[in-house]
Amino acid sequence: MSQTRIVLDESEIPTHWYNIVADLNHPPAPPLGPDGKPVGPEQMLAIFPGPVLEQEMSTERWIPIPDEVRKVYALWRPSPLCRAERLEWMLGTPAKIFYKNESVSPAGSHKPNSAVAQAWLNKIAGTQRLVTETGAGQWGCSLAFAGQMFGLPVRIYMVKVSFDQKPYRRLMMQTFGGEVIASPSLLTKTGRDLLAEDPNNSGSLGIAISEAVEEVVGSPGSKYALGSVLNHVLLHQTVIGLEAKKQFGKFDEYPDMIFAPCGGGCNFAGVTFPFLGDAAAGDKRAQKIRMVAVEPASCPTLTKGVYAYDYGDSSGFTPLMKMYTLGHDFMPPGIHAGGLRYHGDSPLISQLYHEKLIEAVAVPQKATFEAGVMFARAEGIIPAPESAHGIRACIDEALRCKETGEAKTLFFNLSGHGHFDMAAYESYFAGKLEDFDYPEEAIHASLARLPKIG
Amino acid sequence: MSQTRIVLDESEIPTHWYNIVADLNHPPAPPLGPDGKPVGPEQMLAIFPGPVLEQEMSTERWIPIPDEVRKVYALWRPSPLCRAERLEWMLGTPAKIFYKNESVSPAGSHKPNSAVAQAWLNKIAGTQRLVTETGAGQWGCSLAFAGQMFGLPVRIYMVKVSFDQKPYRRLMMQTFGGEVIASPSLLTKTGRDLLAEDPNNSGSLGIAISEAVEEVVGSPGSKYALGSVLNHVLLHQTVIGLEAKKQFGKFDEYPDMIFAPCGGGCNFAGVTFPFLGDAAAGDKRAQKIRMVAVEPASCPTLTKGVYAYDYGDSSGFTPLMKMYTLGHDFMPPGIHAGGLRYHGDSPLISQLYHEKLIEAVAVPQKATFEAGVMFARAEGIIPAPESAHGIRACIDEALRCKETGEAKTLFFNLSGHGHFDMAAYESYFAGKLEDFDYPEEAIHASLARLPKIG
Repeated sequence: MSQTRIVLDESEIPTHWYNIVADLNHPPAPPLGPDGKPVGPEQMLAIFPGPVLEQEMSTERWIPIPDEVRKVYALWRPSPLCRAERLEWMLGTPAKIFYKNESVSPAGSHKPNSAVAQAWLNKIAGTQRLVTETGAGQWGCSLAFAGQMFGLPVRIYMVKVSFDQKPYRRLMMQTFGGEVIASPSLLTKTGRDLLAEDPNNSGSLGIAISEAVEEVVGSPGSKYALGSVLNHVLLHQTVIGLEAKKQFGKFDEYPDMIFAPCGGGCNFAGVTFPFLGDAAAGDKRAQKIRMVAVEPASCPTLTKGVYAYDYGDSSGFTPLMKMYTLGHDFMPPGIHAGGLRYHGDSPLISQLYHEKLIEAVAVPQKATFEAGVMFARAEGIIPAPESAHGIRACIDEALRCKETGEAKTLFFNLSGHGHFDMAAYESYFAGKLEDFDYPEEAIHASLARLPKIG
Repeated sequence: MSQTRIVLDESEIPTHWYNIVADLNHPPAPPLGPDGKPVGPEQMLAIFPGPVLEQEMSTERWIPIPDEVRKVYALWRPSPLCRAERLEWMLGTPAKIFYKNESVSPAGSHKPNSAVAQAWLNKIAGTQRLVTETGAGQWGCSLAFAGQMFGLPVRIYMVKVSFDQKPYRRLMMQTFGGEVIASPSLLTKTGRDLLAEDPNNSGSLGIAISEAVEEVVGSPGSKYALGSVLNHVLLHQTVIGLEAKKQFGKFDEYPDMIFAPCGGGCNFAGVTFPFLGDAAAGDKRAQKIRMVAVEPASCPTLTKGVYAYDYGDSSGFTPLMKMYTLGHDFMPPGIHAGGLRYHGDSPLISQLYHEKLIEAVAVPQKATFEAGVMFARAEGIIPAPESAHGIRACIDEALRCKETGEAKTLFFNLSGHGHFDMAAYESYFAGKLEDFDYPEEAIHASLARLPKIG
């Protein structure tokens, strides 16, 4: 029998996260205040604890993973690296297809990799409780679980439309011990003002962020936690790629191309940055890898956005970050991959894309679900809609290989399972999924509203 | 860091299933027809293929696992054996708690272990398509997946009330390529007659079995597959215990007690039979293990039933099997652990219980969910309601150890996750779960209706 999966012993969980900031060609552009001046750590300390900010600013290449974090990682890590032989066979491709299975975590995705780290860093900083927001629910579940591991209460502002439509994600958070609040809520001034205007306001990620931050600023002992975009979140996710490198070694294989969905960017970063690190260190094989960020055609941040300073949230509360953006108040069409409906992208990924070290491609919704179903039937795992984006792009490349006869080694990150997204599959099977047109006019309009600096 | 999980390489997937029939003190009582005469294989061949029946009747101790089956097992097997250190800490017990994590499979439970084997045995027998029934949906998902692996179409009669209330389990079957029919249906005489009487008939497992069997008997090339109770199903599940023995060796530990939920019995059998095999072979340590089948207080087959010949289904279509039973037409209260709402028990497990080689205990519903939530908060896995029964009994023993100071090694089988059972957790958190009284009168009444033989 040829090898299907490489599992590693928990002693092989990485001991350090890889910080790509140490290997960038140029220092990252700093976050700016509305006055155009760099935001200092003291402003950030109001919402993040010192140890998190230290990692956010760090230029060290290797950052130790605390034993307490590795111990919790060991509940599901190292995650398996799998050869998708049956998918190759179904496609009739000469390409070899591998995937890293991050769906085995407590929340069912890669998100706990950072949630556990952030909860621990808050714990040692003396934080009493954590407050965050969640859209589709993955991040909320991850932080609820992570807080539980270290005895930190977690409050989650959940976008009201998701709170109502995804009761099982909400219940997962509650089962892990999290407190879930429908946002907008009466607990914050932001929420009260919005509900006074419109009692039926169904919320947005921007509003939920505002409520979480407002609460934290006014509550000593409470801190905020973010699930993507920022440097420290991407840093924590590098355990994915670090493990994958070891596992490829045991398969005696090496990827020619890597695919991962890209919303805020933490899952793409997690799988690719360690290979980019090898490339920076002069590894010729790593330098040849093509790394492809996959985004929805309806929210094409890298492929159609501009590289500019913009707000991280839709309301303009956050510092300005230099990133690819569709404009902070661009409202993407209602696709089912909620985790990819983000107007911007991580500054680190944006910089790498700007310097042409990585690539990007946008895929339409229906073809994405078609790929998800094909993968489920081949490998027995129903992928999250977000993850199906990476699968789609990988399958497209495998089909190109079929035409050219190239036996490339393709690798994608299966960032999560779709057990809480079956309603989306129901729409797909019922023929009710839409392929939204590229929202060109809306993007032009929101880009025209990019903030002026200084 | 102490070891949290033992994962094995796929080369350590067992090469043979263990057949306990070879080691029983007495030969199993044969299935009987209504005339009191043993049912011959020729009658069974109408619904099962030869290679399945051969395993059903076999007295060989070791039965080879075909490479094609091991190759599919490798998508998720060997499953991890985990030490629940955080649960021990939460309980403050000196006991060590281990669990085998069968929730990592495509369907999210142990059920695919037999579904894949049955699909392959049908494939080599020339079966064109498979027909089965499903209640809560676990078995239907497993067979849909297994059929997909070998290109066998699968039709699943799903009890109508579940079809309506558990759309996501239905969608999982469809995603794996299964065809799902609400039962009673217009496709069979059984279904048509029932719907003519009552168009709103919401179905039952007994009705769904009847429809599946009726269709198979009238369709050359179609065969039936059952998810528990029968010898061959229990046989296939022994991969669980065989792997666990290797894994305990790597932990340098050995169980004093084993707990597993018991409905039809295949998951309990899967984890315990290989240890019983060691005991039969004279292994002193194995002879000392206490093995506890855990059932719901509202459906207490082993703890309150009688050992007698009875039908396997509620309608009296199947052969008579000698087993512990509450009476074939006993209707258990509507607890959320659908997989444990069975009036009977596997004949093999019934015999072992009758001969006092295994024990049984019944636990109430609310305490079961309490244990499920505690486990989720300790280990990051939300258990299926069925699985939470084993956890409850294990926690109770761990708490006894706390009183006595005994450092016992406790082991339970986490048979599945609860991602498709969150509505049950919602009822628990909302305080709406019932602890049904022991249904004494109903059981007495149904036991009075046990079939007379001959």
